[in-house]
Amino acid sequence: MTGVDLQTIPARRAVAVSVRAGQRIEVVNTYGRQVVDTWAFAAADRTEWMSMEHSRLHIARLSPQVGDTLVTNRRRGILTLVADSSGGVHDTLLAACDRYRYELLGCAEPHDNCTDNLHAALASVAITVAATPSPLNLFENARPAADGSIEIAPPVSPPGSSVTLRAELDALLVLSACPQDLVPTNGPDLTPTDAQFRIFC
Amino acid sequence: MTGVDLQTIPARRAVAVSVRAGQRIEVVNTYGRQVVDTWAFAAADRTEWMSMEHSRLHIARLSPQVGDTLVTNRRRGILTLVADSSGGVHDTLLAACDRYRYELLGCAEPHDNCTDNLHAALASVAITVAATPSPLNLFENARPAADGSIEIAPPVSPPGSSVTLRAELDALLVLSACPQDLVPTNGPDLTPTDAQFRIFC
Repeated sequence: MTGVDLQTIPARRAVAVSVRAGQRIEVVNTYGRQVVDTWAFAAADRTEWMSMEHSRLHIARLSPQVGDTLVTNRRRGILTLVADSSGGVHDTLLAACDRYRYELLGCAEPHDNCTDNLHAALASVAITVAATPSPLNLFENARPAADGSIEIAPPVSPPGSSVTLRAELDALLVLSACPQDLVPTNGPDLTPTDAQFRIFC
Repeated sequence: MTGVDLQTIPARRAVAVSVRAGQRIEVVNTYGRQVVDTWAFAAADRTEWMSMEHSRLHIARLSPQVGDTLVTNRRRGILTLVADSSGGVHDTLLAACDRYRYELLGCAEPHDNCTDNLHAALASVAITVAATPSPLNLFENARPAADGSIEIAPPVSPPGSSVTLRAELDALLVLSACPQDLVPTNGPDLTPTDAQFRIFC
């Protein structure tokens, strides 16, 4: 990884990044409390995307561990988790935040959200996708309790910790630094931050 | 419910059923071991559908209990679980089975699957949907263990037990009697069966 510059995912915004099969992407939780909603679309056909509901069966657990491969809605491997210094707490259960979420939380004005971020990032590379896949929510701490109840708690990832994913297909990734500032998704001070990433071989 | 005839969901097949807001649908696990993949689409706009990833946040748990309302991808209530004599074990985590699933399980020939069943049932009422939402898998026993691991076990629902869902919106439902016969989704004897349903006020 030495010598590969980190790039910024601005707080409250998303970036679209193309990767080739075999390349790796390291996503850094710079301040340790930022959730990064992550999507992956096959380059060859953007109706094939990374699917949490297919991946949970493939990996036979709720959330990926190092060595696990996430699969598409055609059950092909697309991203493998190859390293994780964050404590390993990520979420596959919850939808990306959206305008409706913030309306229900009482926002009278439009609020930045990961769903609009996804589609804006795709539009920036001239791509339209007909649905919003459920994202891999890196660093999100919403592990269900033994009784199946779910509560969103602050991330446990140390500042500067990261996850590294290897692309198994040529893919377009979208990374959204979640703008949630009304519940503690992004830490107890409710302040979304930048995150960072880098691509390497 | 007296006097309302039960209708059949044929083994390995799906049916499409329109319901009006306020109507109830009872889904009966006739032989006690059949999973029924269930989808709901808003009648007013078929890009608004029942979403497991939005519902898990709304109900704050992995799987609905009596009184819980499942929501759409616009976070509007669409179905409320109003009665359940099945033991309460249902799945929201796993994708519908599809041709890719059976290919990975070693099927050389095409195999009936819930994803194709969904789109065939929609086609029977002249509807096309651009994606395959993750279904509510009624009676499916795939509760994660405390360590987050997931294993598909036979249903626990007694023969003739049922769930009743109330429509909160005018909606089109699709119910698929899952054709899985290679793993014990539909019981240890790997034999999919009919299920039944009725609509009432």
